[in-house]
Formats: sequence, structure tokens, C-alpha cells
Amino acid sequence: MLQSKLFSKTTKNLPEGEVAKNAQFLIKGGFINKSSAGVYTLLPLGYRVLEKINKIIREEMSAIDGEEVLMPALVHKKYWEQSKRWDVDIIYRTGKSEKDKEIKKPEYGLGWTHEEVISAIATNFINSYKDLPKAVYQIQTKFRVEPRAQAGLLRGREFSMKDLYSFHTDIEDLDKYYKKAINAYNKIFKRLGLKAVVTEAAGGDFTKEYTHEFQVFNEAGEDTVYYCKKCKFSQNQEIYNNSAHKNCSGEVTAYKAIEVGNVFKLGTKFSEAFNISYLDKNGKKNLVIMGSYGIGPTRVMGAIVEVYNDEKGIIWPETVAPFKVHLISLAKSKKAEKQAEEVYKLLAGQLEESEVLFDDRNASAGAKLNDSDLLGIPLRIVVSDKTTAAKKFEIKNRSDKSAKLINISQLKSLIKKL
Amino acid sequence: MLQSKLFSKTTKNLPEGEVAKNAQFLIKGGFINKSSAGVYTLLPLGYRVLEKINKIIREEMSAIDGEEVLMPALVHKKYWEQSKRWDVDIIYRTGKSEKDKEIKKPEYGLGWTHEEVISAIATNFINSYKDLPKAVYQIQTKFRVEPRAQAGLLRGREFSMKDLYSFHTDIEDLDKYYKKAINAYNKIFKRLGLKAVVTEAAGGDFTKEYTHEFQVFNEAGEDTVYYCKKCKFSQNQEIYNNSAHKNCSGEVTAYKAIEVGNVFKLGTKFSEAFNISYLDKNGKKNLVIMGSYGIGPTRVMGAIVEVYNDEKGIIWPETVAPFKVHLISLAKSKKAEKQAEEVYKLLAGQLEESEVLFDDRNASAGAKLNDSDLLGIPLRIVVSDKTTAAKKFEIKNRSDKSAKLINISQLKSLIKKL
Repeated sequence: MLQSKLFSKTTKNLPEGEVAKNAQFLIKGGFINKSSAGVYTLLPLGYRVLEKINKIIREEMSAIDGEEVLMPALVHKKYWEQSKRWDVDIIYRTGKSEKDKEIKKPEYGLGWTHEEVISAIATNFINSYKDLPKAVYQIQTKFRVEPRAQAGLLRGREFSMKDLYSFHTDIEDLDKYYKKAINAYNKIFKRLGLKAVVTEAAGGDFTKEYTHEFQVFNEAGEDTVYYCKKCKFSQNQEIYNNSAHKNCSGEVTAYKAIEVGNVFKLGTKFSEAFNISYLDKNGKKNLVIMGSYGIGPTRVMGAIVEVYNDEKGIIWPETVAPFKVHLISLAKSKKAEKQAEEVYKLLAGQLEESEVLFDDRNASAGAKLNDSDLLGIPLRIVVSDKTTAAKKFEIKNRSDKSAKLINISQLKSLIKKL
Repeated sequence: MLQSKLFSKTTKNLPEGEVAKNAQFLIKGGFINKSSAGVYTLLPLGYRVLEKINKIIREEMSAIDGEEVLMPALVHKKYWEQSKRWDVDIIYRTGKSEKDKEIKKPEYGLGWTHEEVISAIATNFINSYKDLPKAVYQIQTKFRVEPRAQAGLLRGREFSMKDLYSFHTDIEDLDKYYKKAINAYNKIFKRLGLKAVVTEAAGGDFTKEYTHEFQVFNEAGEDTVYYCKKCKFSQNQEIYNNSAHKNCSGEVTAYKAIEVGNVFKLGTKFSEAFNISYLDKNGKKNLVIMGSYGIGPTRVMGAIVEVYNDEKGIIWPETVAPFKVHLISLAKSKKAEKQAEEVYKLLAGQLEESEVLFDDRNASAGAKLNDSDLLGIPLRIVVSDKTTAAKKFEIKNRSDKSAKLINISQLKSLIKKL
């Protein structure tokens, strides 16, 4: 698409108090807009990145038999009361609108997780062992009261979440699916360009076993993980026990880390509260065993920016970049201008047109190249009077230090491989 | 996909007080689940329909240069105060969580529309006439206080909305785009199988001119529209003036109607409140002229069900059906069973596998055929011992009264055309 038409522009202005690097780069680049603390709009560039992340997640959820649903944000208090979670601190409550601007006895808690809703639904469809196993997921907006919301997309008051729920006849079947889900998560993070370390963490209310988090080691992270490179031992600080690292001569090191996903064995906590039961082969009634599995797509986007950047801006992995190619015209002559347009046509012929950003703006070379570094599109192609005169094209990967000149046939074969 | 694996099942049980036909069919078919009054979950079948509706909308929005964004649901009260809409009755307010379960001085109004948010954003990117026109849209969840939420998907407390906003230098440019948007809406509703009549309606606060609604004539509708078939005169009851129907010998008739879309000329209402201005060619500062354009995808889904049904269930238009083909095995013999599996392979080879629902369940013929009518998939193919013995296949369009038998070569050529 033409950069001159793009809704957003790059900016040097940051909202007051925006200290997180991910939010700073994303705001400067015009990917997101800060609406209020911990609440952001995804502008066209940011929405493109988010949808690429979501597409990868959907493909891997589908591969482990997840069926997509969409649950509501307005979760009636009857659900929270049933699981005894109406009183939690992090829930936003709302209800009947009152002109006096005070809300008394709110009726809804905005969904910060959906175990309650999916459990109530599951009772309608699970009756027999023949109905199991089942897995459903959604990519949906979640709300959590965060007193300090200063980490940009890493910790918002409103954020997107992929939550998968699975239902099983017994622990063995849950264990099997749990491993499949971990495997799917490893694939997802690999495709997203993130090195996520499977880390043991506390089970909270749900389970006496450990749960597992997917942690990306990075200074912006709010977690601390104790990790041994040699044997892959990894525990969240909250449960870390030095004596658990046994039979290994490797060293355990503490890392700051961003939690990008987690998997929980819920056991019967919610099937008990909501009475999700099934008849087994012998006609005996049993409680269903559940698992729950989360990834935050907007947090993932923030994590990718924290991991992939330099002083000039973002360096998107190819799989999630808003565009595959940034074509920049620095043409002053008609001849070079025409050349740039021809390259745009070549690119649009090979890729979808929507995968090429063509900087056709009337701006200085410096401004255009700086913007390109800030936006972080993987491949940059520059057409100028100079390159046109030399019958060359300047190409540069965002992650490379310097550009190189190639001729038309080299350009064509490069484009063919995109 | 295999129907035996599907998360949902059909049901005869309806939640108490569910009187709307669209919700009744959709709940019975396992498309949606009622969470509380006016709040629904989209189950896998319903989510598939919604995504098909959204895809059509996205294509037509993109065709009129709409760029997709995603705005938040938590809209800080500062925005509503700036446009003097914090006090409206339909807004759900929330804020800091309080353990005492009362919320005093809420900070957020849940977005029931997003003129405020997009206007605040636009000030960052619109400075010059060169930045105009611009159009952005989102498909996002909206919240409105509805004291009576009894119309199923036609009027929810939580529902999905496509909202498009456009920005222009002057009224002429807005008028031009407004016509383009109406044209795009006509295309959308045509593709969705809905006959939507462009109807004049009151401008409310926004404009002294009429706005335009897209009305589908149907008894389930909550609006009344006065319409002349001959000259296409159409006015909402709230503004209807008999004397406005001039120079036409046709008759004006009152119809109940479902509003599935609307378009507004906002003028400078929000650009004034948020100070969205631009410098014109002479360096003079002017206010931006805005338009806003809505379609409710979940309401559209409800409207389609209200229009397309019979006593047995839903009759989905092909463009939004959850699957293109419903393959039903009534096989008792191994031979017929194998035959059904072969047809499934044929279909999956031609279509995406996800476009075929294969009823492989162990259930009676009656149950399977009744479920098929309820689900409303456009093309049904039945394989039974009888059809297999006769080397035939039974096919029936959901909208046809009777089935017919075809042979394998006819089946193959039918499948090729899918």
C-alpha cells in the first residue's frame, strides 16, 4: 500500500509517563495509540501485526483440535459466585447504568478469564464419555484491574487473550493433551520468533502440581526465572528451590523474563463448581477433568518489540512484520520515479499488494530512512536517482548493518523468493 | 469436519424467557449459548457464520479504502466528557475495583460507539489537507444498557459492531464518500442475502439532514418503515411525513423492519469537540468534516435467521453458511459406510475440509435429518444402504422441498462446481 495514504504517521511525541520501551517504539512508529493507562488502540500497522500473530495461534490451535468460539466480556455475577471468584481484586464490575454515576450492586464482572463461562456451557454438551475429549478456544478481549499499568503492551488493563479449555475423562487423557498443548505452544513461539522457556510455576488454587509458564528472558520482564542452560531446569522465582536442581553440573542463573503463555491443569475445580459430569462405559457418573491454556497476543506483540529492536527502532521477525517489503522512493527525477513504480508493480505482482509498503511521500531521504528503521519492516528496497543512473537497486535487511546494490535480474530473483 | 467431534449438539431445551425466533433457532442448533439476558457466546458453528459475515464486510470496507484498527472497550470518562456524552443512559460505567462491591466515581464507560476515541486519535495524524481524506474501521465488541433485551441477537447488551469513520476537508468530499459507503453497504447486504432498503431517518444530535438506515422488512423488526415500492420512498416512522411522498402514484405501506446498518454525516460535531483541524492550501485552519457508518455483524446474523427459516430450522444463504455441504451417513452396512467416507474425501479434496460437515454419528436417520434441517447447511448429501445398493446419492438443497437421486458422475460434477 502507499505510505502517503496510511492513516498513521511516525511521531517523536510520547504520552506522559509512557516508560516502557515496547510502547515507546510502537507509539513512535504509529502502531498503537495510548487511550489511557494500560489501554491502547491498535492502529492499522499494529492491527496488521496482531492479526499475523493471531493467524499463527489459530493454525496451531486448530492443529490440536481446538474449535474457535467467542465468549462475552459481560460475565454475570452468578458465574463468578458459583466459582467463588466474585470477590477478586482484579475484576472490573459494572451493571445497571445510574444517572448519579455511582453503580450499586453491579451485575457483571468483565471477563478477566473464562473458566466459569465455558464450564457453564460445557454442561450442555458433555454427558457421556463419548463426548470427550473436547477442546475450545477463543481470541478475545480481557480486562484486569492493574493499579500500575506502566509496561505498555506487557501488562494492560485491557488486552487480548487466546484462551483454550480442554475437557477429559481422566487425568491420563488430560496429561496427554497437556503435552500436545505444550508442543503447540513451542511451535507458536518458534514461529513468532520468540525463544520461550518452559518454566515450572505455582499452581495457585487450581492444582498441587506445578503449572507451566512460557518465559522469554528479557530485561523488560516482570518475572524472575531460575534457569540452567545445561539441563533446561527452569523455575519461577516464586517456587524456586535450589535443591530441586539435581544430578546436573550446570549452573542455575536468574533471568528477568516476560511470561508469554501458560498452561494449567485445572483438574476438577470448575467441573465440581459447575457440575460438568459424564457417564462412563459402565454408566457411572464422573466429574470431567479440565485444562486451561493461555497466550496473550497483545503481550506477545510487546514482547517481540522488547526482544527485537535497536536504537533506531523495531526489527520485526518476518512472520509478524506488518509488511514484507518496504519500498522507498528517493526519486527526484521522473526516470527514477518511474523506476520505483515499476518495482512496486513487480512486488505487488509477486506478493499481495497489501504486503508491500511503498513510501511515495514527498519527504526528505533522511526522514524516510529513519521512518523505515523505526517501522522495522524486514526488507528495504531503495530507488533513487543515483541507483537508477547506475541501473542498480539498493537493498538492505533491517537486521543488516549495511545496504548493497543489486541489478535488475538479481532484484527479480530476490522478489521471486519472497 | 466430523460432526461426532463437534463441541456443540442440537438441543430442544431453551433458556427461560427466550422468545426471539432467531435466538431460539440458533440455540437449538448449537450456534450460540445464552450467558445472561442480551449476552451470548458464539459457539463454533455461530463463530463460523460470524467470521463469514465479517469477511464480506472487511472486503467491502477495504474496497472503499478503509484501514482496519481495533479500539478499546474501556473508554476513559475524559473522552465522554469532552463530547458531553458521559451522562447518557445506555453507557455501562466501571472503574477501580472495590471489595465492597460498590463502584464509586467510575473511570470508564464501556464503548457503545467510538467517535470520541477515533477523534482523539485523528488529531495526531491529520494536520494538512494532504492528510485527507482518511477512513478507518474496526469490528469490535460494543456494550449498551438495554433494559429489555429480548430480541436475541437483534438487540443485545453486548454485541459486535463494524464502525467506520471518515475524515474530509469539506462537505462535498464527505458527500462523495457517503455515497461510496452506501454503495458498499448495498454490496455487503446483497452478498449477505439481505434485501436492505435505504431509509431516511432522524439525524439526532449530529445533523439537521436525514441520516440513512438500512432496513430489512421483517415481522421481528422493532422499527416501522413507510415504504413505496414504486419510487423507493422510504422513511422511518419517527420522521415519516406523508406529504414528503410526492410526484408518485405508488402507495406507501408500513412495514416492520430490522435496522442492519446506518450511515451518518457527523459534520463537525466531533472535530469541534476534539479540535481535529487541518491547514488548507492557503494555510488557513479548518475543522475536519466527519462521517460514521455502522453495521452490527451479530445483529446481521440474527436478521438472516429471521428472514431465512422454516418450521424445521434455519436456511442459511450460501455466503454465510457455517459449512457448504452437510454429508450425512445413514449407513448400516460396511459398504455404505465406506461409500460415505469416499464422498467425504471427494468433498474434502474439492473444498477445504472445514467446509464439509460429515455426520458420522451413531444416531437414528430421523435425528440426523432433523438436525440437518435445523442447522440449515445449503446442500445435503445422504449416503445410505439403499442409495449405495442403487449406486446413487441423495442430494437436496435445504431450500428445496424434496430430494433427488444422482449417480456418481453427476455427483462428481456437482462437487466440482462447489
